[in-house]
This record gives sequence, C-alpha cells and structure tokens, in this order.
Amino acid sequence: MKKELKIGMIGAGRIGKLHGDNLAHSVSDARLVSVADVYLNDDMRAWAKGLGVEKVSADPGDIINDKDVDAVFICSSTDSHAELILQAARAGKHIFCEKPIHTDPAIIKEALAEVEKAGVKFQVGFVRRFDHNHKKVRDVVASGRLGRPHIVKVTSRDPEPQPMEYVATSGGIFLDMTIHDFDMVRYLSGSEVTEVCAFGGILIDPEIEQFEDVDTAIVMLKFENGAVGVIENSRAARYGYDQRTEVHCDKGCVQVSNDRIDNSMISTVEGVFCEKPTWFFLERYNNAFIAEAQAFTDAVLTGTETPVTGIDGLMPVYIAKAAERSLKEGRIVKLDEVMK
Amino acid sequence: MKKELKIGMIGAGRIGKLHGDNLAHSVSDARLVSVADVYLNDDMRAWAKGLGVEKVSADPGDIINDKDVDAVFICSSTDSHAELILQAARAGKHIFCEKPIHTDPAIIKEALAEVEKAGVKFQVGFVRRFDHNHKKVRDVVASGRLGRPHIVKVTSRDPEPQPMEYVATSGGIFLDMTIHDFDMVRYLSGSEVTEVCAFGGILIDPEIEQFEDVDTAIVMLKFENGAVGVIENSRAARYGYDQRTEVHCDKGCVQVSNDRIDNSMISTVEGVFCEKPTWFFLERYNNAFIAEAQAFTDAVLTGTETPVTGIDGLMPVYIAKAAERSLKEGRIVKLDEVMK
Amino acid sequence: MKKELKIGMIGAGRIGKLHGDNLAHSVSDARLVSVADVYLNDDMRAWAKGLGVEKVSADPGDIINDKDVDAVFICSSTDSHAELILQAARAGKHIFCEKPIHTDPAIIKEALAEVEKAGVKFQVGFVRRFDHNHKKVRDVVASGRLGRPHIVKVTSRDPEPQPMEYVATSGGIFLDMTIHDFDMVRYLSGSEVTEVCAFGGILIDPEIEQFEDVDTAIVMLKFENGAVGVIENSRAARYGYDQRTEVHCDKGCVQVSNDRIDNSMISTVEGVFCEKPTWFFLERYNNAFIAEAQAFTDAVLTGTETPVTGIDGLMPVYIAKAAERSLKEGRIVKLDEVMK
Amino acid sequence: MKKELKIGMIGAGRIGKLHGDNLAHSVSDARLVSVADVYLNDDMRAWAKGLGVEKVSADPGDIINDKDVDAVFICSSTDSHAELILQAARAGKHIFCEKPIHTDPAIIKEALAEVEKAGVKFQVGFVRRFDHNHKKVRDVVASGRLGRPHIVKVTSRDPEPQPMEYVATSGGIFLDMTIHDFDMVRYLSGSEVTEVCAFGGILIDPEIEQFEDVDTAIVMLKFENGAVGVIENSRAARYGYDQRTEVHCDKGCVQVSNDRIDNSMISTVEGVFCEKPTWFFLERYNNAFIAEAQAFTDAVLTGTETPVTGIDGLMPVYIAKAAERSLKEGRIVKLDEVMK
Repeated sequence: MKKELKIGMIGAGRIGKLHGDNLAHSVSDARLVSVADVYLNDDMRAWAKGLGVEKVSADPGDIINDKDVDAVFICSSTDSHAELILQAARAGKHIFCEKPIHTDPAIIKEALAEVEKAGVKFQVGFVRRFDHNHKKVRDVVASGRLGRPHIVKVTSRDPEPQPMEYVATSGGIFLDMTIHDFDMVRYLSGSEVTEVCAFGGILIDPEIEQFEDVDTAIVMLKFENGAVGVIENSRAARYGYDQRTEVHCDKGCVQVSNDRIDNSMISTVEGVFCEKPTWFFLERYNNAFIAEAQAFTDAVLTGTETPVTGIDGLMPVYIAKAAERSLKEGRIVKLDEVMK
Repeated sequence: MKKELKIGMIGAGRIGKLHGDNLAHSVSDARLVSVADVYLNDDMRAWAKGLGVEKVSADPGDIINDKDVDAVFICSSTDSHAELILQAARAGKHIFCEKPIHTDPAIIKEALAEVEKAGVKFQVGFVRRFDHNHKKVRDVVASGRLGRPHIVKVTSRDPEPQPMEYVATSGGIFLDMTIHDFDMVRYLSGSEVTEVCAFGGILIDPEIEQFEDVDTAIVMLKFENGAVGVIENSRAARYGYDQRTEVHCDKGCVQVSNDRIDNSMISTVEGVFCEKPTWFFLERYNNAFIAEAQAFTDAVLTGTETPVTGIDGLMPVYIAKAAERSLKEGRIVKLDEVMK
Repeated sequence: MKKELKIGMIGAGRIGKLHGDNLAHSVSDARLVSVADVYLNDDMRAWAKGLGVEKVSADPGDIINDKDVDAVFICSSTDSHAELILQAARAGKHIFCEKPIHTDPAIIKEALAEVEKAGVKFQVGFVRRFDHNHKKVRDVVASGRLGRPHIVKVTSRDPEPQPMEYVATSGGIFLDMTIHDFDMVRYLSGSEVTEVCAFGGILIDPEIEQFEDVDTAIVMLKFENGAVGVIENSRAARYGYDQRTEVHCDKGCVQVSNDRIDNSMISTVEGVFCEKPTWFFLERYNNAFIAEAQAFTDAVLTGTETPVTGIDGLMPVYIAKAAERSLKEGRIVKLDEVMK
Repeated sequence: MKKELKIGMIGAGRIGKLHGDNLAHSVSDARLVSVADVYLNDDMRAWAKGLGVEKVSADPGDIINDKDVDAVFICSSTDSHAELILQAARAGKHIFCEKPIHTDPAIIKEALAEVEKAGVKFQVGFVRRFDHNHKKVRDVVASGRLGRPHIVKVTSRDPEPQPMEYVATSGGIFLDMTIHDFDMVRYLSGSEVTEVCAFGGILIDPEIEQFEDVDTAIVMLKFENGAVGVIENSRAARYGYDQRTEVHCDKGCVQVSNDRIDNSMISTVEGVFCEKPTWFFLERYNNAFIAEAQAFTDAVLTGTETPVTGIDGLMPVYIAKAAERSLKEGRIVKLDEVMK
C-alpha cells in the first residue's frame, strides 16, 4: 500500500475548493499537489497557495501529464467531465468525478469503457451515500435484519428556487436535482429500477415553463427485486434543505429525518418552536464530502473497489431520461426503452 | 334547535357497538334509543341492555318505521348500505352511514339522489377527518397561512395482513384500505383528483394473487388545483398502525406523525428505545369516532351541513376505480374515464 | 368475586363529577348508585340524574349508612376527608379518598388506623401513578432491567398561577402541588425518602409572599436505597402542563416527556412549530383517572391490595412537612425529624 | 488589526493536539508556529511536523521567550497552568488556558492579577459555551424574549466512569466534572451563584470512597437574580455523553437535548429504536472547540474582550469549593463563606 495519494484538482470553483480544502485538511493519506482551472484567477491562486499547493495552472493537461500525480478530482463544468475522464484514464490516473458524468448515456459509456481499459479506479461524486443518516438506512436494509425492502421513499426539497439562468442550462429537474435521488433509491433498495412514472407541476414560478421544465415532481418507481418506490421533489422547501429517506421492509421500517441547526425547543403560550433543518447541501453534507474523498483515497491506496462506481454514475442518468419521457408523454416508461 | 337526537343503530357488529357506546356515553345531545341487527344475538341484546336501550330488533325496518327515531346509524355490512339509505331517506330519517357507501358508483348516486330528495342530513364515516392530527394538517392548509398546496402525502400502513377470507370479499386494497386515503387527500388538498397512477406489489403473502389483489401499493395523484400527491400503503407495517400525512405548500410544510403508546425513551448502551405507534384504528381513532358522531349530531340538531357529505362518499370510490384500472392496465388513468 | 361494585360519591364538585362520570361510563364492574354533597345544588342534582343516579342527598351520612353501598369515593374538601374516612371505615365501606388525606400526619394516622381495624380497602387518589407515561418509567425501573436507580427527576409545572384566594388556603406549594411529586418519587424510585433540602423563590407574583409561600421551588432528596433525586416546580409554565419524569439507573436512563395537543410540525422559513403540551391535569390525566378508579374497583372486587395504600397517602405529607421546614430554616431536613 | 495570530502550544497531550489540529486547519487567521511539551516525545514531534510546525521543544520557556509568538495555548497539566500564566503574561503573550486554571482560588487570583497587570488577553477553555445547542439556550435567555430566568437546569453525565487512577488526582467530582456545569449555570442564567447545597452518592463503584469522592451528585443553586437551579451528574450514563440544559423563564422554557450519532428511527414489532447521543466530549464538542479557538483568535486580533474571561475561570472554582463543603458538612453553603 502506498503511503500517500497525490491528487491533482481540475476545476477550482465552489465544489472544487470544497474538495480541495477537505483533501488538504481532513482526508488522511491524501495530499493535494496541484490545481488546474481553465478560468484560473487570482482568487484561485491565493486559495491554492493558502493550502500549500505549489503547482497551479490554467491547463488541466498539466495535471494529467504530471507523473507526480496519482489521481485527479474532476470538478470542472459537467460538459468537460467525459473528455477529462478519457484523458486521465489514458494517462493512468485514478479518477474522482463530480456528478453527473454527462447528460448523454452514450458518452458516459464511452468514458467508462476507457476507464475500464486503463484499469484505473473511478468514483462518482454521489455524496449523499456518505451521509451518516442515509448510510444508516442503507446499512440497516443491506444487513437484512428487516428482511426484503417493500417501499423506498425519498423526500428531497431544495430550500430556494435556483435562478432562471441556472435552470436554463441545468438539463431539467430530473438530471439536475432528482439525479441524486435516483442514485439514492438504487443505493437504499440495493436493486435496479425497471419502470418509472412521473407527475410534475409548475407551482413555484411560471417562468420555468419556457424551459419545458417543472419545479415540483413526484416519481414513482418499480425495482427489479419487486419493491416499489417514490421520490418527491420541490425546488422550494423554504424552511431549508429537506432530505429524508425511508425504507419499509418485511419486518418494519427504517427512516431518517433532517439534521437541524440546533436541537433547541422553546415552549411558550404560543407553541413550541424548534430550529429548521440545515440550510443546504454544504451544511447538510459537510461531513459526507470528507467521507467520500476519504473513501476514494482509501480505495486507491488499498487497491479495493470504490464505493460509487461507473455504473452508479450511468444508471441514474438512464432513470432521469425515463422520468423525462414519462412526464412528457404522460405514461409509465420502462427503463429498457431508454437503455436501448 | 331540538334538545336531543334520538338515534337508531342498524348493525351491531364491531363498528356498530363502537358507535353505540360512544352515542350512549360520550356524545352530547345524542341518545341511542334502538338497535337492530339482522343477525341479532344474545350478546347484542346484552350489550344494548347495558346501554339502557330498550328497543332491540332483528329487523332494521323497526327502526326505519319508528316515529320516535330521528336519525339512523347504518353500520351493517357494506352491501346493505345503499338499500338502507334509500329506506331511511324515504322515511325522513337523518343518516350516518359507515364507509364505503357501496363499491358501485351508480348505486351510490342513486342512494344520494334519494337523500337529496328527502332533504335529510347525510354523513359518511370517514373518521380520519376527525383525528386531531390529520385535522390539524387540513386546518393549516385550509387557513391559507402556508399558501397553496403543492404536494400531498399520505402514508397508511395496517399493522398486520388481514386473513385471506377477509381479502377475498374486501373489494381489493383500493376499495377496502386506500379508500380512506383517497378521502384524506381530497380533505387535505381541498381539491378534486383528476388523474392517478398506481404501482403495486405482492410482497407479504403470495396467496393474495388469486384475488388479483396486491398488498403493497403506491398511488400517485394529480389535483384540479395543480398539486400532486402520493399515497403509500402496506398491509403489514408490523410495528403498528402507521398513519402519517403531510402537505407541502408555497411557504412551507405541515406534517403529522403517529401517536405512540407512550412517549418513553429508554437509553442504554444498546441504543435508545421508544414505544411503537398505537396498534390499530380502534386505538388511534378512538377520539375521532366520538368527534364524528358529535359532529353528525350537532349538524342535525342545528340544521347545518354535515362535515362529510354524500359527494365525499362518492368521489373516493371513483378514485379507487381509477387506481384499480391503472394498476391493471399499467397506465395513468384520468378520473373522467371512470366517471362517465 | 362480586360482579359489580356499588359506589357512593361524597362530594360532587369538579373532581367528584369527574370521578362520577368515569364510574358511570368508563369503569367496568362499577356502578355509581348515590351522590351526596353538603352543598347540594340543582346543578349537582341534574348531573346525577343524567347519570341515572337516583339517590341524591345533602348528607354524606345517607351514603355511609346505606347498606346498598359497597364503597365510597371521598371527593369533598380536604378538611373533611379524615372524618369521612373514620365514618366510612366504621360502616365497613371500602374507601377511595382524594389526595391529600389531610395536612396533619397525626390525623392521617388516626384515620388509617381505623381503616386497618375495619379491614376495608383503601386507596388514595394519586392519579399520576396511572398515567401511561409515568407508569412506564416505574415499570421499567421496577423490572430491574436497568439495574438500581441512581437519580430520580421530576419536572412539574402548572400552566398558570392559581388565584391568590386559592393560594391562601392551599396549605402552601409543597402540600398543594409538590405532594403529587413527592408521591411520584416514591413510586418511581421504589424507595423511601430520608432527607430533603428545598430552595424556593417568588418569581411570578410577589403577592404570594403574604402567605409565606413560594411559586417556584426545587427540592433535592435522598432515598433509603442510596439514590438521590430532584423535583422542580413552577406555578406558571405558561405553555401548558409540564410533567416529565426520569430515572437514571446502573445501565441507563428511562424518561418521559409530555403528551402534546397534537403531533403536528409546521416548517416555514421562520422555523419549525409544534403544538404545546396538553393544557392541565384534566387533559393530561384523563385516562389515568379512569384507570385509577378501575384499579380500585378491581382491587375491591378481587380482594387484592389497592395500588395506592394508606402509607402512600401518609408519606408524601411527611416529605412536604420536611420540605417546608427546610425552606423555612435554610437547611437539610431528615425525614426522621418530622416523623417523630 | 493584525492579519494573523502566531500561536505557541504548551502541552501536546490529547487536548493540546486537538487544539493544535484546529488551529492548523480550521481556525481562520490563526497560525500554529511552535509546540512545547516537557514530556516531548517522537509522537509529538511527528504530529507537529505533520502540521508544518518547525519549532518543537521540551521547554515551554522556548515559546514564552519567542518574540515571534503572539499568544500561547496552555494545555499542559492543571498544576502547571498558574505558573505558565504568570510567565506568559510577564512576557506579554496573550493567553488561552485550559480549564481549570487551578484548584486553589488564591493561586488563580494571583495569576489573573498578573494578566491584568500585563494587559494581555486571557480566555479560559470552557468549551461548552461554544456548543451550538447550549449557546442557543443562552442566547434566548439573554435576548430577554422569555423574560427573567426562574429555573436553570443542567444534566451532565459522562458515558463511562474514569479509571480510579484518574479519580485519585482529579480533585474530586466537583472540580473535575461539575466545574463545566458550574460555568454553564453562570453562562445560562447571566447571574452569579450565591448558595449551593449538594447531595451525592457512591452508586457506580465503591472503590471511589477511598478518595472521599462521589460518582453521582445533585447540586442545587441560588442565583443573585433570584433564580434557582439544579445540576445533576453521573460518572456513568452508559448510553453516551448526556448533556442537556434548560432554562425556565417568565414566559416559557428553552431547552436543548443531545446530538445523536444519527437521527434514524427503526420501527419493528419490538419497538422503535433510535441512535444514542454522541459518545463523549470529543464527538459532542468537536465544533465547539474550533469555535472557542476562533473566538480567542478574533478577540486578540480585533482587540475586543474574550468571551470567557478570568473571572469566568475563577467563579466555578469557588462554587466547586462550596459544593464540596456542602457535601462534606451536610448543609447549605453560601458562596460568601468560601470567597472570604
């Protein structure tokens, strides 16, 4: 086992910096050695310097061709992921790639084929799998102590609607937001989705109609193992980030509610007041981001399988495509249809 | 306003006795004056006597033709409801009828037409509307303080599967069990259902397949007001009666969880142990049964509208029919289709 | 075993009516046959008639001398309890007596001696022992599954301060309010109190000073079995009736919180709002009142020990006396001092 | 304002390393520049190197005399605190000192006099003040929105008993463990303690008797502002670190419960199972340790008052002394007695 994993960060925007800070401070046996961003600016330079990173570049190729780099974190814009995976794989670098790999399953498959050919480790950034709460649901289900899963439920609501400029290029609610939940139901059920049916509505801001998108959605799912499931989304919870999961099984149910800002209870003649859930993913999944980077580092250093593989990056995109079609055509869609 | 409502009970099985006890002991201004059951037995006689009811008969006609009776509680078997409604309405009796009125919408409509013609009060036994928890959700939504509803959710799981003999004549999960939830979503959303899609599974006992029924189901719904909803059912929660409702609106979310046997918390090195939800509907909706009988009594005595009307008895049957068709045909079904 | 217990009610004020209603409607094998109140009025007559009670009198002697009466419920003013116990015991009636038996331990002992001599059943109205929550704490401790008790905690706050006229004759906070908590700590710990120390304050209404009383108090206790405990009282919680108990033991802790009006949770940008605890003892201990009357009825009919005996009526008064002395003299007081 | 605070760490044991890690990774504008420990070993050297700290020494004087050091963190053994404070203050270093400053109030006062003379910043390590939960209680009370405090409650139980060797030199439960709670009641009430009374017991391990110590204790307190309070301690909760606080005020109550390992709820026929509180102070107060170091750093750099001052280090020791005397002499003790 190697003693330390030397990592190059490609993309130093919000999510790249978050991963970079974690790699520098909170992930054991990882060392951030270089940073590249095609839009490199002074702020990124200062940030890298603060972390003690000496190699900074505007060219991702400087990382991919650096023999001193063992692994790359691909945190650039979604449309650049697939190409960078191809290059990194060919260069023999292990790869951590933010989600989604791409919005086109064909391109994802091509990238994954290259990864396989190169024999490098690959992990997709479905960070919720590393949340202590959702992981507990999964662990209880996977342990078999409650028997087989019957019903899988995910509630997933963002605190505030995204700006319309964001929506315009987001790829739609299913690829942008529900993609995490599609991963979650696979993770929690331990089974593949076979059919979906989606109902959606424009209830928050009518502006979204121009993008043929919705802001509120419910997706019903069937799984290979016979279980059924439902995901429910809103772009505007208003009270914070609402992220609850639940699996009902033969012998009972396991569920998790939200982490709160604090667990105070203020009782007055007007009622009992508690704090809201934590505001958004940076607060809620703070520790999960550290855990996923640690898991990747450990998998590479010990030569074991990463916990979120290429197929885990591909399948949610197929489910999103099926949900899109269901919503558009007003019918139940089998996964087979979109996987052909 | 009349000072007291004199009530005749038709059907003295489990639910009839429950209502009879409440009328005798816990409902103000109500007086149980007679009991009839076509299967009248010594046990029923003893029960009636214990309540001080002197008129006991094996013929419902004895109640319907009794000038001393102001109102009837129809608690006999489902297939007798419609005929008894017709007779009671023609006799000018106010009517409380257990759910469902019938499994055939056409017959329900006929009965309701007679009720309207007679100008008598009519209330259907959707008891959950009177539960302090669900009622709170409804009241918050109806108050408008959270704005318009976006997402309506109902979790409804029975503690243990019913025996197969019960299932054989139950009319199927949607008419037998989900019917309450179909009422609940109308009540909570304040809107009519326009489309449904149902996914189901046989996950508890394969025996149920012979009845072309399922034991696990998810039903997705669209409402006239633009909201979407989901109902999720299991015939076997195992841990008690799981009855949760939730409505997410413009400005936030209102939800209720289960009442528990007690609110103890036992903390040891092995974990924190709490009590289960109350076991089944008799425990959970104990006070709601009293409240619904009180509401009926008050509505008749004050000449006001009953809180659960004939249309409230009819619409859930249509929704159940649509859900059945959806499950059978594997497609989204519009309510219009089944209402023609 | 006798089939039915015929009960005479002495005192038809608020608490007498509550017990009377329960005996008439909700307690199996009990029958309320007569009511007496020295301040008998039309309202009481109407109430008794409504329950089907024919014998109504202004003279408790009419009940005590009635051969048709098996047991009496003494619900008159506290100062009359002891004398009525003496008379009822001599007449061979079983006795349920509201708390406290008296404020003078010597008089209580005299009454209990007569009860013992007569060999009648005797139960004191410490209703909280029959609450499903507190009873659970007791049952867990008594089961031994958590080992020996270490720390016993009682939080007990009334919703609103009583009027000053009430305080004037209440006997002080310890005899009026904490008396229930003194019973509770004996019940929960399964052990006798040996020492107390009380701190008090006038924090709600300075008017109370004229009665040498306090409105806020903490009483620390030692128990024979080595455990320590604390009771904490306020006359004004403002948010309802706050009644929590907790016992920490060798292997962990069992605790109960309050029942709430409903278990709704309303989440908005301003926070999460829940309902308050139930308002006061009539709401909170509604079912416990039924259970205690049932327990008394069962004990008499089956010839078994009542669950709250004479000594249970006496000891809390001693503890209250010790707490009073502690507060007045600013020192720890041993129970032995006041029991001499 | 200076841009960065250069800090020397004196003492590199468990708590020193914890602070060192935080200063290196999680505290803005702080830089750990040197480490000294009189028991310096290879492990400490490796740890310091890992953090990029170049100056490592076995002599605290090397830090105190280093002109490059702005502030010291005193994390050595308790008996060395006072002397190091004197030296650091005379050298003009700002001081963060772990609790308690010393077990002898006279020595504490001498050290604080030197701090004042030197005009350096001084902060004591009462970390719980920086916990998001307890801080919320304090903030609500301090805001005045609930009116004046009436009752202050602290539950504080360690998960497992300390080894007897630890107990032998701990200074006793009040100086070792309750000291945090004495700080907490001052913090929460915003008032000084005037009287205490302590009850204790040996309920966990009789071995402790040889040290004239107890393992279970309740301390009742009076405050200058009229409020009363109670602290309850156990050396062995068994289920984790139980740290709850509550303040009841004129208009209601604010309380906080424990953070849990996760917020899962597993419901089966056997009951509902939840996770335990986090195990001990490293888990529970992880973020609070960062926040306190940040607060110290900010106070020095901005020239403002530190949030936990010298008097905050002194008063809890007086209260502990009073509690000791109360327990030993079996009486209420006024703070005045021990402060003379």
